[in-house]
Amino acid sequence: MKIRRSGRLVDMTHFLLQHPHHLVPLTFFSERYQSAKSSISEDLSIIKEQFEQQGIGTIVTVSGAAGGVKFISKMGQQEAESVETELKKLLAVPERILPGGYLYMTDILGNPKYVNQIGRLFASIFSDHEIDVVMTIATKGIPLAYAVASHLNVPVVVVRSDNRVTEGSTVSINYVSGSSKRIQTMTLARRSLNAGANVLIVDDFMKAGGTINGMINLLEEFQSRLAGIGVLVESEETEERLVEKYVSVLKLSHVNEREKQIQIVSGNYLECEQKFL
Amino acid sequence: MKIRRSGRLVDMTHFLLQHPHHLVPLTFFSERYQSAKSSISEDLSIIKEQFEQQGIGTIVTVSGAAGGVKFISKMGQQEAESVETELKKLLAVPERILPGGYLYMTDILGNPKYVNQIGRLFASIFSDHEIDVVMTIATKGIPLAYAVASHLNVPVVVVRSDNRVTEGSTVSINYVSGSSKRIQTMTLARRSLNAGANVLIVDDFMKAGGTINGMINLLEEFQSRLAGIGVLVESEETEERLVEKYVSVLKLSHVNEREKQIQIVSGNYLECEQKFL
Repeated sequence: MKIRRSGRLVDMTHFLLQHPHHLVPLTFFSERYQSAKSSISEDLSIIKEQFEQQGIGTIVTVSGAAGGVKFISKMGQQEAESVETELKKLLAVPERILPGGYLYMTDILGNPKYVNQIGRLFASIFSDHEIDVVMTIATKGIPLAYAVASHLNVPVVVVRSDNRVTEGSTVSINYVSGSSKRIQTMTLARRSLNAGANVLIVDDFMKAGGTINGMINLLEEFQSRLAGIGVLVESEETEERLVEKYVSVLKLSHVNEREKQIQIVSGNYLECEQKFL
Repeated sequence: MKIRRSGRLVDMTHFLLQHPHHLVPLTFFSERYQSAKSSISEDLSIIKEQFEQQGIGTIVTVSGAAGGVKFISKMGQQEAESVETELKKLLAVPERILPGGYLYMTDILGNPKYVNQIGRLFASIFSDHEIDVVMTIATKGIPLAYAVASHLNVPVVVVRSDNRVTEGSTVSINYVSGSSKRIQTMTLARRSLNAGANVLIVDDFMKAGGTINGMINLLEEFQSRLAGIGVLVESEETEERLVEKYVSVLKLSHVNEREKQIQIVSGNYLECEQKFL
């Protein structure tokens, strides 16, 4: 069925948003709408212009016989700053302080709106990196990992601290939690990660970085490669950090459990973005 | 800045898709694009027609002073059937059989594409129900719960089988796992669920239903109400099922671990859809 431009724009916008980082041949659209490739190209330039203006992302054209167009989800600087500001305000509430210098974030991580925004933030900054899979550890990091992965069009693997039967054969490693200094175990299903995969590690909270360091060690067991690290909140620790390069959205710079004081400042996200782009 | 129709259609489509089940006043759009409400109404009817034709969803108009438009994510019958067929094919592989009659689904649940499709399936069927929150139990059900919740614009609460410090004060109950007959514990943070909330329970796999039954009992502790149950795969059990009303996408009707045989048939999703709509 032939579809007019207005209809095409609506459907193509939906299709591209649903398929980030997918290479879509122009013939796909011209067959879908029974329209000439020249019309499709015009549609795409309208969509591209609007996506860039509104800070939704961009459309990249890959030329050649195996070419096509690809939607890359990118959050504009302005929206990134307003997301950061909103999260900062939400988190900087003394009632959120939990024993051990942790932060109650269950409500924020339970809200798909925030989770999706944070996912778009990380997908933006890592959009030019070669990433084959997003890795996280159960339980809190899972929604963030899926949000990032869905914008990057890659699968998620979830490392677990237990060993459930439904996983099949597994690989386990021991690691030292940086803050509590306890020896813990993390497990990943053998068939869930391929050798040579480029892995983006995503988590909600990082203190000294022992858990993330454990995941990096786990990557070696699978002969996979670390492609990047993204954490929602890093906690400023006095002791040495176990992880060097990472992107954080927010930083918990000062917690006083006794006096119920809390300070949340910007993480390194915005400066990383400037450095990377 | 005044934006032409073609640009408006792209941006409105994006905005509506990002905000399902949100009531958006027409003035929001007319101010955003500096366009007359009559033009906005025309745009919306183009989008509505296209969304309905392509099985994306619909746009509902709420009239009156506090009125506006609302995008409801609904998957068309044709796409629902093709999603079911694809999942059936992916799952009906003897290598997926795990000890105890479980099914290896980690790869499918790790793929945001499938997770999002399953989320849209459940969001479609429960779109007319009053739902305030989606509940699941860690770990496997989490991505499905978020996918459903993001299309319904409600938060997610995650019940856990451990008791982690970052949760704050918690409520725990004991329950009997239907298949293993063991007594287990599930825990939910006190501040994560309000009294009177309408709760949709989502999980990846259901055998006798002991875990879901446990969640229903947990709802009573919070004085919340069960609004519905959605499971990706139900396992056909010889013994009595502990849960009565639920929606399943697929049914594991026959597993023979010894002979490596497996049969996956349709769940009750499609018949429920016809009943409900």
